[in-house]
Amino acid sequence: MSPALTMIKTTPAETGIDPEVLAACIDACFECAQTCTSCADACLAEDMVAELRKCIRTDLDCADICETTGRVLSRQTAYDPAITGAIVEACLTACRTCGEECRQHAEMHDHCRVCAEQCERCAAACEAVLAALGD
Amino acid sequence: MSPALTMIKTTPAETGIDPEVLAACIDACFECAQTCTSCADACLAEDMVAELRKCIRTDLDCADICETTGRVLSRQTAYDPAITGAIVEACLTACRTCGEECRQHAEMHDHCRVCAEQCERCAAACEAVLAALGD
Amino acid sequence: MSPALTMIKTTPAETGIDPEVLAACIDACFECAQTCTSCADACLAEDMVAELRKCIRTDLDCADICETTGRVLSRQTAYDPAITGAIVEACLTACRTCGEECRQHAEMHDHCRVCAEQCERCAAACEAVLAALGD
Amino acid sequence: MSPALTMIKTTPAETGIDPEVLAACIDACFECAQTCTSCADACLAEDMVAELRKCIRTDLDCADICETTGRVLSRQTAYDPAITGAIVEACLTACRTCGEECRQHAEMHDHCRVCAEQCERCAAACEAVLAALGD
Repeated sequence: MSPALTMIKTTPAETGIDPEVLAACIDACFECAQTCTSCADACLAEDMVAELRKCIRTDLDCADICETTGRVLSRQTAYDPAITGAIVEACLTACRTCGEECRQHAEMHDHCRVCAEQCERCAAACEAVLAALGD
Repeated sequence: MSPALTMIKTTPAETGIDPEVLAACIDACFECAQTCTSCADACLAEDMVAELRKCIRTDLDCADICETTGRVLSRQTAYDPAITGAIVEACLTACRTCGEECRQHAEMHDHCRVCAEQCERCAAACEAVLAALGD
Repeated sequence: MSPALTMIKTTPAETGIDPEVLAACIDACFECAQTCTSCADACLAEDMVAELRKCIRTDLDCADICETTGRVLSRQTAYDPAITGAIVEACLTACRTCGEECRQHAEMHDHCRVCAEQCERCAAACEAVLAALGD
Repeated sequence: MSPALTMIKTTPAETGIDPEVLAACIDACFECAQTCTSCADACLAEDMVAELRKCIRTDLDCADICETTGRVLSRQTAYDPAITGAIVEACLTACRTCGEECRQHAEMHDHCRVCAEQCERCAAACEAVLAALGD
């Protein structure tokens, strides 16, 4: 059981979203924020940095948005589905865009391959939360 | 001229959004993030903290979302209108919700009054950016 | 192999710090940031919230400092040992203080027990990075 | 009166640090975080991006550390001088390093000139807080 799931289960407040779905998205958000931060840095160190500008910029946006989404989803007190829905939508958009960008460099740069995988996993986790919100 | 506006004008990349509109939203986002962080802390120190749970939680979400929105808007390289639109929409939702919550305590707590004003100002700045994006 | 370790190994820049030590600290920082964010929220939902003010405040500081430390450590390009050392020192201080505070409520609140464990693990990982820096 | 100062004065908790000194540092931290975020992006857009790697990396660290410092200083409840001192020390180190780096490109890039000024101002504000802590 991940720490995020344990925390959800020991909190005296709840969101109505399935704890497993919620914890999977929180974990994916924090891991994706870390990977995107590293990928931006790795792209910056590449010889071909000038051709990786879009990748770096999208990584930076995706890191910030994933981190904020992971924080918002970690809170269960006085849960507000409108704020949750809007930030998870933004996270899904950022992860899809960043995943597609990194996927294009995945054969040349291993850090972009790992980042594409993390973005795709986080996008899927966001979709699961949005589906739960729509129920 | 605010530092944010100077930075926009001296960057060799652009978004197509009017620099004054963009800088006003960046400044509002960072100021609102600061005010919401302070308001959460001030509510926590109040004797009636148990009745301010919703205000604290919404302040924390709004601070995180405003800060991330201010960062995304500060970037002009390889501009992506889909990510910008989604995060500004999330910021508008958070600022409206937090502004309405703080407005309810504005007569009793001066920190909630100041926070409501900052949220309302940031929401208006987000609407101006969204209008520019829709043009 | 954690994504953080894979990213370190695929980045064309390096810090001189052992990749396993570095990745362990990055992972601990992001996990501790998540747990502290959840613990602040869980404390806020408790009936005895007024007695948990110090725990909530320390959780919020610790979450912010861990997250920033995790980001700084994720960057290897143009590595600066002075900045790294100073932020890891701050993270060690925050994790020790937060871990001691949460430990006091660990028998009463399971979320404080989990948070104390994460803070202690992150403090140990920070000490390992500081030892590597001093070598 | 800046919003940060108003918030300090309306919060029912205090740190013992002079409110004007504290508010000046909070404002400098948030402004410096914004400017460093913009400067990293502007450097990324420059033709000579490969020569600005150190500037970009230091800007990113400084943005993250300033933002976290601004958040920690915005909290007055259950004030802890050890955490405050450690994060303000880290902020001073980051601002000095980033200010010196940007100063080297200040004649060639206006965004680096503005960023150097903000870093120097934030470093001075951190020194004033550290002096107050030492009293």
